Amino acid sequence: MKDSLIDRMLSPNISGRRDFLRLGALGLAVPAIAAACDDGAATAKPAASEHAGTAPAATAAPKTAAEIAAKADEMDRMHEAGVKAFPAKTEGKGNQLMEPRVENGVKIFDLTAKKVQWELEPGKRVEAWGYNGVVPGPQIRVREGDRVRINIKNELEESTVVHFHGVELPNDQDGVPFITQPPIKPGTSYTYEFVAPNPGSHMYHSHHNAAKQVGMGLLGAFIIEPKSKRAIENVDLDYVMVLNDGYHGFTLNGKSFPATEPIVAKLGQKIRVRFMNEGMMIHPMHLHGMHMTVIDKDGWPQPAPWKCDTLNIAPGERWDVIINCNNPGTWAFHCHILTHAESEHGMFGMVTALIVQK
Amino acid sequence: MKDSLIDRMLSPNISGRRDFLRLGALGLAVPAIAAACDDGAATAKPAASEHAGTAPAATAAPKTAAEIAAKADEMDRMHEAGVKAFPAKTEGKGNQLMEPRVENGVKIFDLTAKKVQWELEPGKRVEAWGYNGVVPGPQIRVREGDRVRINIKNELEESTVVHFHGVELPNDQDGVPFITQPPIKPGTSYTYEFVAPNPGSHMYHSHHNAAKQVGMGLLGAFIIEPKSKRAIENVDLDYVMVLNDGYHGFTLNGKSFPATEPIVAKLGQKIRVRFMNEGMMIHPMHLHGMHMTVIDKDGWPQPAPWKCDTLNIAPGERWDVIINCNNPGTWAFHCHILTHAESEHGMFGMVTALIVQK
Amino acid sequence: MKDSLIDRMLSPNISGRRDFLRLGALGLAVPAIAAACDDGAATAKPAASEHAGTAPAATAAPKTAAEIAAKADEMDRMHEAGVKAFPAKTEGKGNQLMEPRVENGVKIFDLTAKKVQWELEPGKRVEAWGYNGVVPGPQIRVREGDRVRINIKNELEESTVVHFHGVELPNDQDGVPFITQPPIKPGTSYTYEFVAPNPGSHMYHSHHNAAKQVGMGLLGAFIIEPKSKRAIENVDLDYVMVLNDGYHGFTLNGKSFPATEPIVAKLGQKIRVRFMNEGMMIHPMHLHGMHMTVIDKDGWPQPAPWKCDTLNIAPGERWDVIINCNNPGTWAFHCHILTHAESEHGMFGMVTALIVQK
Repeated sequence: MKDSLIDRMLSPNISGRRDFLRLGALGLAVPAIAAACDDGAATAKPAASEHAGTAPAATAAPKTAAEIAAKADEMDRMHEAGVKAFPAKTEGKGNQLMEPRVENGVKIFDLTAKKVQWELEPGKRVEAWGYNGVVPGPQIRVREGDRVRINIKNELEESTVVHFHGVELPNDQDGVPFITQPPIKPGTSYTYEFVAPNPGSHMYHSHHNAAKQVGMGLLGAFIIEPKSKRAIENVDLDYVMVLNDGYHGFTLNGKSFPATEPIVAKLGQKIRVRFMNEGMMIHPMHLHGMHMTVIDKDGWPQPAPWKCDTLNIAPGERWDVIINCNNPGTWAFHCHILTHAESEHGMFGMVTALIVQK
Repeated sequence: MKDSLIDRMLSPNISGRRDFLRLGALGLAVPAIAAACDDGAATAKPAASEHAGTAPAATAAPKTAAEIAAKADEMDRMHEAGVKAFPAKTEGKGNQLMEPRVENGVKIFDLTAKKVQWELEPGKRVEAWGYNGVVPGPQIRVREGDRVRINIKNELEESTVVHFHGVELPNDQDGVPFITQPPIKPGTSYTYEFVAPNPGSHMYHSHHNAAKQVGMGLLGAFIIEPKSKRAIENVDLDYVMVLNDGYHGFTLNGKSFPATEPIVAKLGQKIRVRFMNEGMMIHPMHLHGMHMTVIDKDGWPQPAPWKCDTLNIAPGERWDVIINCNNPGTWAFHCHILTHAESEHGMFGMVTALIVQK
Repeated sequence: MKDSLIDRMLSPNISGRRDFLRLGALGLAVPAIAAACDDGAATAKPAASEHAGTAPAATAAPKTAAEIAAKADEMDRMHEAGVKAFPAKTEGKGNQLMEPRVENGVKIFDLTAKKVQWELEPGKRVEAWGYNGVVPGPQIRVREGDRVRINIKNELEESTVVHFHGVELPNDQDGVPFITQPPIKPGTSYTYEFVAPNPGSHMYHSHHNAAKQVGMGLLGAFIIEPKSKRAIENVDLDYVMVLNDGYHGFTLNGKSFPATEPIVAKLGQKIRVRFMNEGMMIHPMHLHGMHMTVIDKDGWPQPAPWKCDTLNIAPGERWDVIINCNNPGTWAFHCHILTHAESEHGMFGMVTALIVQK
């Protein structure tokens, strides 16, 4: 199995970059990558033919039962270690509710865009570009009709801007460089101010060199609470789950399993999950044990709630769901593109759990 | 055209792995792969610029009409051969209804996970890991409220577990290693038992080293019939279509065109198709000649049925549709990511037909 | 930053093909591509680890404020130039309404499939295969119940056929080679004729060697106006937006930003946008400043209209939305897979604007 290219591709955590690059240099990693792309008749085919008549897990000589057992145990130990480590402690936590300063009735949020060393999973630190040193940036929640001021200080080495994705603002507050404002130069500051309009689950993120800046972490949740809630919005827990797949790999709220955060509820409670995709790929999020009732798309109510257990979330989309926590236990909750969630070394990336306590 | 990289990428069936690897070794396959990825401004650009000012199909010297005709005929012959071969016979057929043993009112299904040589299309055999030697595994259908027992025997060389995707089970039957149960070691067996809960189109598949194990074929349909059907569920044919794009390339019910199975109906009949995506990529399935009325998502009724001719199915999702077979003829039915369905050598992969007989 | 592989991947416009190939030849482009694929635990991981502990934007020596400012200004100038160039003039315009000849009450459309040099953006010409020399082909609009005749002349160097995607035709007019008709050989012509059936937003495109032929531009909008409109269909502007990501990179109606066409409306007007995806990838289209009300899927009314600001459009799908232009200004309108819309050199590809004039 060690010599199978696809197996190597499924072993990112351990074989890591050096092996990967070595394969690339030999021109051999290509079919495996291809198989991983969201396309590629061409690409899955070679993978298939590679296995034609041979066993990817086969060795030259038949294995004894003891050898098979030892190898299976070795794999299982890695899987177990990941689960046992969950939820693993890491430095830094993003997406936490930010308290505004209030001046003359204006809710003021001060954000600084800057580089930070970010611990994705225990011991794995990467460079991130974040707001106030965290990824995702602080969670901003205001109320429909609130006057809101966002002060941005740019401590990056390139210009930036902030776009309030989904928020229907006057044009000059929309945050698109050279269309609605000049870029915010390194070392300078800029202020956005507006009355919070359409309620719902929105986002704020860079809209300048955005594939890079958002991929590096310049993003956060921007939620506008409605003046009056619908009955279905009365929940015990309101949880925001930001999906990303940029420079830092596959993350939920800026962390990879086992450093992701479990959602904890008591039996009988209702929770709301606000999915937000800040990445470049779709992520069909699958909950075990219970279904999700979809209520909102991009902050707008669906004509009628509908149920599912796997919800496909595309880049830029937000979907709000209600979960009736009526089934006790620890339930896997993960992206169902399996290569975003598990390798032969165990679960990683976009995996967390919903824990329903009796 | 033979020398165009993208053309080579679109010719997987014939140029196959050797050419592909050779290109990879030269570092030349990269732009073509990139163009095939679901991302990549970067990547489509080189493909575009490659063609700038030059013709991908151009040869050094102008072709005569006779040369053009001969080349077109050669391509057309390959396309025709594929169509004429459909439905091609292959060894092995998955997704067939499994009769349970019944003991004391319990419906018992015995499944063995093991390696098998699997014929994807005529003459093309690959190693698969399947339940009871077929891919997809046997189709399991039970009724809401049935007591169900699933005996799993693991004859693989690694541990496994079975997760009943979409079925709202007690936590200890959920099939997630080290969270709800220990892995099922090679050479050992395990039993799941439960009362069939929420009805609908569900799936069973491995949840251990799953990117590998599901990609190799450890998957199947798990359908729970409702105690009472809705009027719209009264159909003449109930067809399950499992989509996959793993180690075996692009398949419908474990086979590639022309070895895929046509759906045959009589004029005026109503059929139900249950789409299930066990792969890593989206597959927007397109039916010619008639529309599909979407009734269920992940086994749950949509608030109201809605119509379409192209239904995007993401990994882990199940969508149920009704087709009123009111248009006679043989109708193409395929994934509309065209590189999953056709190359310059003809149709392949995720293509089948709905045949409506007068 | 210049030396970061991912940065190079995000810089397609300038570094272009030569650098890309050079990286590929060294086997070094692979992780960057991988990160760009819609999959790839394996692949994003190396990208992440590449940055671990090091700064992608870091240079060997610390930069002075002046150096940082100069570099930021350089990037901003490129971004500004793109915006200022919009809408840039290019030769050729596809998707324009085609007037039919009318003979004996039959609406006749003459289409010639042929090669053409196509200007994607100023100065960037590529080979395209188009209908009547444009990409997308001429926009065809007929009325439900009209008798329609389409004459196809094939001046390509390979056979072709035309499929009317979404239109429920008699089988012999469906345009699938060797199933419903013989291929149309180079130098020959073919005629389709039918009564326009189910109204809505449909498409016409090649269904022979289609990954290549559609990718090269053999596609167009085919709209059937209903005999009687719904109230919600009474709009001031009816705009068709064809998405593509084939051989020509990321395009809207055959052009890349800044050569894309802005949509211009007056404050208070209602517009209808008909999205049509002729590519191989999803494109979640995001409108700034206002939401979209989704009314139709594949030409069929949704059970109830619903709102969003980011609409995920999969290959082969058509989605119709209504926009109430109630927010004045110039609003970005783009694919939210950011690598389809922006690089460090500025916006490109699938970007346009909705201009709401006071």
